[in-house]
Amino acid sequence: MDEDTERAGADLDFHAAIELIGKRWTGVVLQQLLSGALRFNELRERIPRVTDAMLSQRLKELEQAEIVERVVTVARPVAVRYALTPIGRKLEPVLDAVLAWSVDWAAYQASKIDQ
Amino acid sequence: MDEDTERAGADLDFHAAIELIGKRWTGVVLQQLLSGALRFNELRERIPRVTDAMLSQRLKELEQAEIVERVVTVARPVAVRYALTPIGRKLEPVLDAVLAWSVDWAAYQASKIDQ
Repeated sequence: MDEDTERAGADLDFHAAIELIGKRWTGVVLQQLLSGALRFNELRERIPRVTDAMLSQRLKELEQAEIVERVVTVARPVAVRYALTPIGRKLEPVLDAVLAWSVDWAAYQASKIDQ
Repeated sequence: MDEDTERAGADLDFHAAIELIGKRWTGVVLQQLLSGALRFNELRERIPRVTDAMLSQRLKELEQAEIVERVVTVARPVAVRYALTPIGRKLEPVLDAVLAWSVDWAAYQASKIDQ
């Protein structure tokens, strides 16, 4: 594979990755799942402003991208939880970097108000 | 400000930040500007698949968020370049983290094809 093709491929991966993570609500869902597997309703409680339909859609997309997986516990009733896959868990540094930047950004915005 | 309000504020900042960065083409534009100020046409050449209209819109949004600024050089003709502001430059760790993750993600996807 020559350098240009390889470079184009890397650009595509970066492009796909940042847009997948940046979709409305996806970042917040991922951030919640960093603390461990959660049931749908537990996610709903932690993200009050998301609708059921939107949360379902984002979880489906994340499952298709193999960033999230369903963990089914055989009990009565059966319990379904959502957990980060190994490649999903590798998003932690990205989410941490966004969180750190968002704190700087908020401080910057606040500093303008004080001027 | 009590803890819940503070926590809700931080969530909102994270939410706004990751969605701003994740918008279609925004990440790629930011990535290109990390190497220094660029004219509109230079950005267009580096991001062949983006349309003029979309690139203009993303630059306008980034200017409004004060992540990008216009640098006007008084010459004949006047030269307008786009550069990252100080708070914009602080996105470098986020973009680096996304790039690193996207390489892992691509390798993971490729490993599935080889199975």
